[in-house]
Amino acid sequence: MMERLPGFRDFYPEPLPANEPWSCDLRNHIFAAWRETARRYGFREYDGPPLEPLELYTNKSGAEIVAQLFNFVDKGERAVSLRPEMTPTVARLVATAERAYKKPIKWFSYPQLFRYEKPQKGRLREHFQLNCDLFGEADPAADAEMVALLVDVLRVLGLTSADFVVRLSSRQAWQRFFAGRGGDPARAYKFYQVVDKIERERPEVSAEKLSALGIAMTEVQEFIRASVPEPELQAVLDNLSARGLRDFVVVDYGVIRGLAYYTGIVFEAFDRKGTFRAIAGGGRYDQLVQQVSEGRVDLPALGFGMGDVVLAELLKDRKLVPSFQGKIEVVVLVEDESLRSESLGVVQAVRESGRSVEFSLVPSKGDKQFKRALELGATRTLRVERGEESQLRVRIKDLKTREERFVAIGDVVAQL
Amino acid sequence: MMERLPGFRDFYPEPLPANEPWSCDLRNHIFAAWRETARRYGFREYDGPPLEPLELYTNKSGAEIVAQLFNFVDKGERAVSLRPEMTPTVARLVATAERAYKKPIKWFSYPQLFRYEKPQKGRLREHFQLNCDLFGEADPAADAEMVALLVDVLRVLGLTSADFVVRLSSRQAWQRFFAGRGGDPARAYKFYQVVDKIERERPEVSAEKLSALGIAMTEVQEFIRASVPEPELQAVLDNLSARGLRDFVVVDYGVIRGLAYYTGIVFEAFDRKGTFRAIAGGGRYDQLVQQVSEGRVDLPALGFGMGDVVLAELLKDRKLVPSFQGKIEVVVLVEDESLRSESLGVVQAVRESGRSVEFSLVPSKGDKQFKRALELGATRTLRVERGEESQLRVRIKDLKTREERFVAIGDVVAQL
Repeated sequence: MMERLPGFRDFYPEPLPANEPWSCDLRNHIFAAWRETARRYGFREYDGPPLEPLELYTNKSGAEIVAQLFNFVDKGERAVSLRPEMTPTVARLVATAERAYKKPIKWFSYPQLFRYEKPQKGRLREHFQLNCDLFGEADPAADAEMVALLVDVLRVLGLTSADFVVRLSSRQAWQRFFAGRGGDPARAYKFYQVVDKIERERPEVSAEKLSALGIAMTEVQEFIRASVPEPELQAVLDNLSARGLRDFVVVDYGVIRGLAYYTGIVFEAFDRKGTFRAIAGGGRYDQLVQQVSEGRVDLPALGFGMGDVVLAELLKDRKLVPSFQGKIEVVVLVEDESLRSESLGVVQAVRESGRSVEFSLVPSKGDKQFKRALELGATRTLRVERGEESQLRVRIKDLKTREERFVAIGDVVAQL
Repeated sequence: MMERLPGFRDFYPEPLPANEPWSCDLRNHIFAAWRETARRYGFREYDGPPLEPLELYTNKSGAEIVAQLFNFVDKGERAVSLRPEMTPTVARLVATAERAYKKPIKWFSYPQLFRYEKPQKGRLREHFQLNCDLFGEADPAADAEMVALLVDVLRVLGLTSADFVVRLSSRQAWQRFFAGRGGDPARAYKFYQVVDKIERERPEVSAEKLSALGIAMTEVQEFIRASVPEPELQAVLDNLSARGLRDFVVVDYGVIRGLAYYTGIVFEAFDRKGTFRAIAGGGRYDQLVQQVSEGRVDLPALGFGMGDVVLAELLKDRKLVPSFQGKIEVVVLVEDESLRSESLGVVQAVRESGRSVEFSLVPSKGDKQFKRALELGATRTLRVERGEESQLRVRIKDLKTREERFVAIGDVVAQL
C-alpha cells in the first residue's frame, strides 16, 4: 500500500492509531503555546513561501545546511529549494518592507522546514519550527527580551528550570579570542565551526583542526571552562535577573552555533539531563539583512528557532502532554425519526451558538446514540420530544449529574 | 534584490507595506473561521506531508492535475511531488488507520497546496485550502452535513445567501444520463470532462466533443436547464431545509467537477454576482479509499475544499475584512531608568498573567513612549514610580478614559 515518504510525518487526531506517534492535537497544543507566548511578548505573525530561490540559502547559511537542501530545478528552469530554515526568508521580507514598520520589528512564524538528511531520533526530513526575530535594536536588552521569550514558551508548556537551561555564549567573545591569538579574520568562520563541533568530535580531531588555525586546544578548553561573562552577556544576565528568569540561563562558551551568519550573542536551550538534542537555538545576525538586500537596508537583528520534534519528545518524557478528549459539547439524540427534521433544526441552532454538536446522521438505536455521547465526552444530550398537548420540547440531560430538564424547542439555545 | 518565486506569496503583518496585498492577519482570520466552524461540526484536525510520492496523484486525480504538478526527483531517486490537493493524502491516512476510529470519521485540515501553472487572478502557484472530509457514511445525510458545514464556514465570515450559492449536482445523474443514451462506460470520465468545461468552452467545441461520444449537445443543455432534483439531491435539499439553509443551495447540473475520483453528489460554491472563480467545491468519492489501499479498505467518502485566495478576494470585495489593530493590551512606560529593573519585573508579571505587553527596550523619552502606546492601541499604560516614603508603586492609566490610579508594585496583576 502507498506509504508516506521516509522522514515525513502524518499527524492523526487522537486517539492515535497503533504505530503512529505524531498527534495533530499535540502539534496544535505546541502551536498554541508558541502563538500565545509570542502574542504576550508583542510579536506579530508573518509567513513566507515554503519554496524559495536556491540562491537565498547558498553562501549565507554555511556549507553544512546547503549540502542538506531539498533543492531541485522547477519546470521554469529555476533553481529552487524547500526552505531549510526561516531566517533568510524573514530577512528578505524585512529588507523588502521595513519602511512600513516601526522599530523594533518583532515578528514570529512557525513554518514547516525541510532538510534532506538521514532520518534519526529527534531529526526528521521536516519539522515545524517557531521562529521569533527582532529587527532594529542592537542593544543586549533585545537579546534578553528574546531569551526571556524562549524561556517563557517552554514554561507555558509546563517545563521548569529543573527541566531545561539556556546556554548563553557570544560569537564576539570567540572573535576576540581568535583575533587576540593572531587568528586570520578570513578563517574565523572555520574556527567557529571547529568550536561548534567540539562536544561531538573526538578531541584529537578538534585539536588538529585548531592547530592548523594556529590555536591550541587547551586554550579553547580553558576559555570554555572559565565561562567568564563578557560585558554583553553580563547585560543580558542582569536583565533576565530583573525578570526573575536568572535560573534558566548559564554562560557557556561551548555553544557557538553552526550557521555562518551569526555575529553576536548566541544561545541554545537544552534539557538538563542531556538526553535530547538542542530544544532551541539562536542569536544575533546583524549583517544578514544588509547581505540579503545587497546593501540597501542595514538593520541589526537577532532571533531563535525552536523545533517541534525534540520539544514533543521532551514533553512526552516529562509527562507534560495533556489529554485531548472532550471536544464535543452537545450530542443531539434522534430517537424518534418523525422528529428528525426538528432535531436538525436544533443541531443547527446549537452549532450557531458556537458549541460543537454531534448527532447520528442516519437512524440508529437510542442506547447506541447515548453510548456514543458518553464516549465523545459530551457534557449534555438534547432530545426533541412531543410533550403534553403534543407541543415540541427538548429534553436536556446533564451527563455529569444525569439531571434532566425540559425547555420549549424555540428556547433551547437561550436555556442551555 | 532577492525576490520570492513567481506565484508564491509572502504574508506580512498589518499595516501592510505598499504593493503587498497578502496580510498574515487576514489569512489567520480565515484560518480561525475554518477551524472554529469545523470544530462546531465535530470535525477533528489532521495533517499530512506537503511532499508525497508522485504515484499518489498519477492515475487518481485525472490528467489535468497531473500536468500541473510541482514534481521532481529527490536525492534518493524518488519521484515526488508537492501536494496539489489533500484528498489523496487523507484517503491514504484513513486507509492506513481507519480501524482506530469510530465511524463516521469527520476530519479537517487546511494545508498549503501547490500547482505549477501560469499565475493569474484568483489562481497562484500555492494556496491554503480548507479540506473537510467524512468517511464511512453513504447516506445523502452525510452530503447534507458537508454542504451545511461549507455554508456555515462562509456565514461565519459574514457572507449571506445574497453573496453566494452552492450549486448541487450529481455524477450519478450524469452517469445515468450517459448510460441511458448508450454511452460507453469506459468513456464516462471523458464525457464528464466535456460537461465540466461546457461553461468556459466555445459551444461548437463542446458540441463536437459530445458528438464524438455519441451525445447531442442540445440534450445536455436541456438536462442542465431543467435541473430536476434526482432523488439523492432531493434528500439533501430536504435535510438543508430542516436546518434553515435551503436559501444557500440550488440544483445545477452544469456542475460536475473535473477530478476523476468523484462518484456521487458533487457541488461548488460561487459568488452570486459571478465575479470570482469557485469559492469551494467537493463531492463524493466512494471508490478512492479502496483504490489507495489497493482493495484492503472500502469506505464511502466525501469532502470539499475551499481555497483562501478567492475567499480573501471576495471578503475584500464585500468589505468583510475586519480591522486587525489593538493586539497590545498593556504598555509599560520606563521613564526613570533607575527603575528599569523593577519595570522589567512588572513586564514579566503582566505577561505571565496572559496579557500582551510592550515596552521600550532601551532608554527613550517619556512622551515618545506614550505616543507609541497610543499607536499600538493599548488599553492601559503602567509606570513604576517612587511614591511617598519612596515605596514603589505602579501608576495605571486607562487610555480610553485617561483616568489614573496607583497600586502597590506587588499587587499590579491582581489590580489590573
